Amino acid sequence: MTTAAQKKYVYLFGKGISEGRADMKNLLGGKGANLAEMAILGLPVPAGFTITTECCVDYFNNGMKMPEQLKNDVPAALAEVEKLMGMKFGDPENPLLISCRSGARSSMPGMMETVLNVGLSSVTIPGLIRKTGNERFVYDAYRRLIMMYSDVVMEKAEGLEPAAGKGIRKLLDEKLEELKKAKGYASDTDLTVEDLKALCEEFKAIIKKELGTEFPDDAMAQLNGGIGAVFKSWNGKKAVAYRRIEGIPDDWGTAVNVQSMVFGNMGDTSATGVAFTRDPATGDNKFYGEWLINAQGEDVVAGTRTPNPLNDDTKNEQNKLLPSMQQLYPALYKQLDDIRTNLEQHYHDMLDIEFTIQEGHLYMLQCRVGKRTGCAAVHMALDMLNEGLIDEKTAVLRVAPAQLDELLHPILDAKAEKAAADKLFVKGLPAGPGGAVGKIVFTSEDSMALSAKGIANILVREETNPEDVEGMRSANGILTSRGGMTSHAALVCRGWGKCCIVGAGELVIDEEAKTVSAGGFTFKEGDYISLNGSKGYAYAGAIDMMDASENTDFQEFMKLVDKFRTLGVRTNADTADDAAVARKFGAEGIGLFRIEHMFYGKNSEEPLFALRKMILCSSKEERIAALNELMPMMKKSIIATFTAMKGLPVTIRLMDPPLHEFVPKAADKVAQIAESLNITVDEVEKRAEAIHESNPMMGHRGCRLGVTFPEVTAMQARAIFEAGIECGIEPEIMIPVTCDGNELKDQKAVISKVAEEVKKDFNLSELKYMVGTMIEIPRAAILAGSMAQEAEFFSFGTNDLTQMTFGFSRDDVGAFLGDYLDKKILPSDPFQTIDVEGVGFLIRHAVTEGRKVRSDLKVGICGEQGGESASVAFCYAMGLNYVSCSPFRVPIAKLASAHAAIVAGK
Amino acid sequence: MTTAAQKKYVYLFGKGISEGRADMKNLLGGKGANLAEMAILGLPVPAGFTITTECCVDYFNNGMKMPEQLKNDVPAALAEVEKLMGMKFGDPENPLLISCRSGARSSMPGMMETVLNVGLSSVTIPGLIRKTGNERFVYDAYRRLIMMYSDVVMEKAEGLEPAAGKGIRKLLDEKLEELKKAKGYASDTDLTVEDLKALCEEFKAIIKKELGTEFPDDAMAQLNGGIGAVFKSWNGKKAVAYRRIEGIPDDWGTAVNVQSMVFGNMGDTSATGVAFTRDPATGDNKFYGEWLINAQGEDVVAGTRTPNPLNDDTKNEQNKLLPSMQQLYPALYKQLDDIRTNLEQHYHDMLDIEFTIQEGHLYMLQCRVGKRTGCAAVHMALDMLNEGLIDEKTAVLRVAPAQLDELLHPILDAKAEKAAADKLFVKGLPAGPGGAVGKIVFTSEDSMALSAKGIANILVREETNPEDVEGMRSANGILTSRGGMTSHAALVCRGWGKCCIVGAGELVIDEEAKTVSAGGFTFKEGDYISLNGSKGYAYAGAIDMMDASENTDFQEFMKLVDKFRTLGVRTNADTADDAAVARKFGAEGIGLFRIEHMFYGKNSEEPLFALRKMILCSSKEERIAALNELMPMMKKSIIATFTAMKGLPVTIRLMDPPLHEFVPKAADKVAQIAESLNITVDEVEKRAEAIHESNPMMGHRGCRLGVTFPEVTAMQARAIFEAGIECGIEPEIMIPVTCDGNELKDQKAVISKVAEEVKKDFNLSELKYMVGTMIEIPRAAILAGSMAQEAEFFSFGTNDLTQMTFGFSRDDVGAFLGDYLDKKILPSDPFQTIDVEGVGFLIRHAVTEGRKVRSDLKVGICGEQGGESASVAFCYAMGLNYVSCSPFRVPIAKLASAHAAIVAGK
Repeated sequence: MTTAAQKKYVYLFGKGISEGRADMKNLLGGKGANLAEMAILGLPVPAGFTITTECCVDYFNNGMKMPEQLKNDVPAALAEVEKLMGMKFGDPENPLLISCRSGARSSMPGMMETVLNVGLSSVTIPGLIRKTGNERFVYDAYRRLIMMYSDVVMEKAEGLEPAAGKGIRKLLDEKLEELKKAKGYASDTDLTVEDLKALCEEFKAIIKKELGTEFPDDAMAQLNGGIGAVFKSWNGKKAVAYRRIEGIPDDWGTAVNVQSMVFGNMGDTSATGVAFTRDPATGDNKFYGEWLINAQGEDVVAGTRTPNPLNDDTKNEQNKLLPSMQQLYPALYKQLDDIRTNLEQHYHDMLDIEFTIQEGHLYMLQCRVGKRTGCAAVHMALDMLNEGLIDEKTAVLRVAPAQLDELLHPILDAKAEKAAADKLFVKGLPAGPGGAVGKIVFTSEDSMALSAKGIANILVREETNPEDVEGMRSANGILTSRGGMTSHAALVCRGWGKCCIVGAGELVIDEEAKTVSAGGFTFKEGDYISLNGSKGYAYAGAIDMMDASENTDFQEFMKLVDKFRTLGVRTNADTADDAAVARKFGAEGIGLFRIEHMFYGKNSEEPLFALRKMILCSSKEERIAALNELMPMMKKSIIATFTAMKGLPVTIRLMDPPLHEFVPKAADKVAQIAESLNITVDEVEKRAEAIHESNPMMGHRGCRLGVTFPEVTAMQARAIFEAGIECGIEPEIMIPVTCDGNELKDQKAVISKVAEEVKKDFNLSELKYMVGTMIEIPRAAILAGSMAQEAEFFSFGTNDLTQMTFGFSRDDVGAFLGDYLDKKILPSDPFQTIDVEGVGFLIRHAVTEGRKVRSDLKVGICGEQGGESASVAFCYAMGLNYVSCSPFRVPIAKLASAHAAIVAGK
Repeated sequence: MTTAAQKKYVYLFGKGISEGRADMKNLLGGKGANLAEMAILGLPVPAGFTITTECCVDYFNNGMKMPEQLKNDVPAALAEVEKLMGMKFGDPENPLLISCRSGARSSMPGMMETVLNVGLSSVTIPGLIRKTGNERFVYDAYRRLIMMYSDVVMEKAEGLEPAAGKGIRKLLDEKLEELKKAKGYASDTDLTVEDLKALCEEFKAIIKKELGTEFPDDAMAQLNGGIGAVFKSWNGKKAVAYRRIEGIPDDWGTAVNVQSMVFGNMGDTSATGVAFTRDPATGDNKFYGEWLINAQGEDVVAGTRTPNPLNDDTKNEQNKLLPSMQQLYPALYKQLDDIRTNLEQHYHDMLDIEFTIQEGHLYMLQCRVGKRTGCAAVHMALDMLNEGLIDEKTAVLRVAPAQLDELLHPILDAKAEKAAADKLFVKGLPAGPGGAVGKIVFTSEDSMALSAKGIANILVREETNPEDVEGMRSANGILTSRGGMTSHAALVCRGWGKCCIVGAGELVIDEEAKTVSAGGFTFKEGDYISLNGSKGYAYAGAIDMMDASENTDFQEFMKLVDKFRTLGVRTNADTADDAAVARKFGAEGIGLFRIEHMFYGKNSEEPLFALRKMILCSSKEERIAALNELMPMMKKSIIATFTAMKGLPVTIRLMDPPLHEFVPKAADKVAQIAESLNITVDEVEKRAEAIHESNPMMGHRGCRLGVTFPEVTAMQARAIFEAGIECGIEPEIMIPVTCDGNELKDQKAVISKVAEEVKKDFNLSELKYMVGTMIEIPRAAILAGSMAQEAEFFSFGTNDLTQMTFGFSRDDVGAFLGDYLDKKILPSDPFQTIDVEGVGFLIRHAVTEGRKVRSDLKVGICGEQGGESASVAFCYAMGLNYVSCSPFRVPIAKLASAHAAIVAGK
């Protein structure tokens, strides 16, 4: 075991002393690593140090006790920082104030805690007043420290519970509001020095009374409390929820960045701001940012004030009248714009930066690779490639597969939107792309409740906060009255590619009454509205949606993707329409055509009736008669899809219908079947009862039906062959639910007999086709060697394979899968992402054993996971020939496949 | 590829020319190999030759065409035989007649075809008449040839279909009966030479007319036809059905034995007989046989005449007045008895022999290891061990594990049987051991239909024939009016250890009316009767059954078994009664105690009510209240079994109840639950509906319930610990339905928390217990390494593991498993015998990976297959620590385990 003493837990950063680097993210967190890198680049970074993520992990493993060695390491680092800043922490004359901020490997905006102004106490306040000559500023800072610290450290981290039964933050807020009301103040800025002094004393009294302990008056005690609170917030409820959604492992931990404070709120020559080196919504190569004069950073992010535009490029409807930094402080703007160029050249990527101006001096507080919409990601990747900033492979890697979703997903139908111009009730900032239509809800809980029922909904809020993440996830779109493009809602939605409009200031929301008004409209909960997240427009009523139009960036990017991709990508499609969409998105064939599709949806009445007869008849003769009725309908259905896929391979899976589902329930349908089979209604019900199964997923299905009723296989084979001849397609016939090579032998014999008959009937000298199998039963994977003796191709049906491997019924897993994910028993939903350890073991085994027997065995996957990027990467690693996924996932699968190939080649 | 020409297809046997040996069974079949061996021993064997099983396999692989080389080999071998016999096949002066008989590796009595008297034709008949001076004998033989050949060769093998639409055999039989009726004859023996001559001509005319071809008048043509017919009968319907039951592979093939005919029907100095070197029913060391004067072998086996006893030892109620061979022909008997000794000394086993006496000369036609009852097998093994004929290991190997079943299975309760003395309606021969009670059926079909519904039944027939095998298998007992101890029914039942009485001649059976009368009783179909197969007594009504009484042979034999056994044998037992039975049979502990047993059967009312409350309540508080009610009842149930198993290990499986099955259906029960939970009946139904699952086998069950409701696990742990403390047992707690090591970690944490509480409550310094898991989900087997990090033992739940590995729902597999076995897709029912390729792969993998992580990992199996001998052998090979099976299978598992160890040590 490594002893704690051997680890380096603390890394300094600042001019000339940086111990970290940008590539030490795993250890220092993103923020810490980049602070160190910026200092190395000579940028003006307030000095500080980073306590490592490793220390956080040790802290949790050690029963939430700080490692002993920190007791020496922190003061030692602090001493270095003091030297660089020329100030001393806790010093009565020249006091240094510091901040404690979280910083994980991967950005988790707003999900963990921060404590600012640490070091203010009865000892340091007088000195700081003397030094700044600004007593109001100092007491305002002290008030903020007390409010933040009592909430974040004392209540949340240390677990002190207010006697009054509500949060300490709320109690202090109430006191503040009470004072303002008594004095008739409209804003916090109206508070006088005396007001603030008195308030701080009252706050401390409340804390003593409610939490039973004094507010700490010692700088070092405050610092230690702050560090502990940041660590603890890693396992706070909202951080855990966010990680669950983002797939961030729980055992990464967060670093703590202890940094010298600089103040954007020291008057009108002070300011704070947030910027992106390019437009994160569109990807345009324009410096994009917002700033607030005389404010602290949290004011920008919280979205409580509409921020000023950084420059002309950032102006919009809401902020066009506010002065930009470019206008107001051109020199500082120039300095910042140079830093922008410097950073992009250094990082070769778009960056998200935070800065503060303290009395005319610019400080860099953060830089990180900026989140961006899918559209922006594609656009930037192509631009940076053209600018020579990155190479082709990097450009491909710059877009996360799931981000492509945004480019593919529906938007409001342009014509319908134009026609609804009189229903436009509010404009806001275009924070998240695409369109959304749904019922208004006002809380995260209501959104989740509706979504659980499959009802589209739009979450309408004044502003969102980190507590809302799950509701934001579940909503189809988000509309807020406050906040800018870097507000919480905007950041989160952009990360997800979700339709979102923020800062629609005209909205009047009454959360109590559950109504919202604007532009002469008043809506209540449950009313439909429509959002255009790309423009920032919100409309009354439901507007039709449409597919994202052809996007030239997308087309160009996909060409680049195909250049590096080696794994084939097919689609799961059952209709000509689906096939056409998939083809448009670049599908290279159909990996799964479910022949029984014809029994669902429109025009299914007639085939369904024949199918029901087939299911419910009692003799082979009746069955053959019903099959003969079905054959031409099936042939027609296959021809439609073959035609749409002309020139590309098509794998047709033989019927795997859940028989009992097709049994008619409605009295008229039952009567119709009874009449057609010339039996009583009672008899129909008796026969239906006879095919009822206890566990239909493991029942008489797939090729098992074909074994029992070879005529069912024969009919399908004929429909497929005849359709294939008509369309000039060599069908790949796929036999489902097999568990033994002998099943394949049995079914192949039936198929080849039909092939001989068809050859004769059509006077053909040869009839080309392939016969393969789904590998969806564990035993089929285990016996892959003998399966491959019969099968010319394999296709992993990972839905069923996952089901049987885990013994999780897809239909019933909802009862406990949530608990399994919450308790971290499973890392992710195995029906979404291939379970590499279990199902993956079977896939690896099957590919290896299958190819031993048949070296040219074609192997694909056609389960849901075929379009999920981690699963695609696994399929690449397994040496599969192709993945097959739903039409809209084809580009995602292609990109994931290119990523896998590029990463493997590195 | 081996070319046909390189194979030796034909092996001669006879005085001084035998090319085969007894150990060449696989190639020559049992009959052929033993004929060769007897000839080598100098016994009087009519010369002949054997065509190999390999030739049969090649014949089938070659599209049922005889290999070319036989055209030379057969005449060449025939020439050798002719030399030895001093006669010539097809010769007009001194014609040799031959027989063609099947002979597979494993005896399949009556399941394949035989053709006798081959070589009789217009050319040879006159010569044979001259030679034998017995014209009637010759024409009778010719009549038999025609009847047999036209049926077996022309119709069955060559596929000629009688125009009349019924079998040719039936047509000829009718003609024969017609003639007898016209002439007023009672028996075939009344037929005169002229009758027979005319009959043969008529027969040939009928054949010509019905089958459209002449009866062959050429000896060689007859021989070739006979050989082909025997080969073809390997794939006849009844042979296939028999192999399915006996587990004989389809690809073994049969040999054909072509042998010189000898005749037991050449007058009163001729005879034919069948004998066992020891009593096959009891195992007593007594020569046991039956014979018929002036008869052919088939007459004895067919059971159409009651045969004479061979000697005094063989006399019984039926035959005691008939002369024995010992009395009638003492010298021949002495010769035969010497052969008996000679053969036993040579083969070291009990033999079943067939002989014929032709005009005072004894010929040996067959010898093979004799079938025996389980009781006889044990008795003989011990006797032969004492006689020094075999060693201990051989003695153990002499009893097939499944045969022990007979020693364990119920018999009629002795007292009840005595009390029912006035209901004894008929006595017959004690052909199969034990007792049976059931409803009378008259056909195999009816027996199968009742058995399918789980209704016990007794098949009552005049005599059984090979077409009946499946019905005989399904019946609980068999009662026939004809036949001796070597009749078809007796042979088959003895092989299976099934209760059987044959030759109960007083029975008057009316198959049309479905009634049977005897002893003043008349029964109709569906009436209950009871059989004592060990005595041969049949009673009206249902007599109570009881366990087989303690059997000293059995006890002694099991001691021998335990001497060589290495694999442990535990039992699956849920009650104190079951545990006691298993313990009596030598179980070394409990491998599976299902805690939910307490909710079934007697005294389950109260716990069931508490369980229902637990299932249907809506809050954790209500659930805990219900669990607190359950705990003491569960503890009591566990204490009962712990007490019965005192001193031996007990593995307790935590609850895996199919929740929905426990939901009350009856209105009063529903109302009761509603009242107790203080909710409406509607609400109860709503909650019941909410827990309904589409595929409950893969639903919210086993440890998944424990993960969701840890309090359910905690309650069980407490009941187990408290029971363990009270009984001084260190429980082995088994967690079911796991698929991931993290589930175990989660559940172990709950259990160990309870352990700490219990230690405190009971003031204990330590509390010993183990926690292990069922491996019954494929993923658990795949991830065995990580499972073993948590589990201290594994127990393969092969029922569920088979289910998930195949994707076969046990409850639904009936719909297609029959087709899978019929079509040879699967070799056997995987729920009966472990599927070595699929499920076995997972077991092997899990054992290997589990022991890598935990070298002392205890591994067992507790599925149904744990008591099946092939599966036990597999478990031995896998290095398992123990198998666990139902109490009555414990001795079987022990014997199978000893067999495996002995075979492995060879």
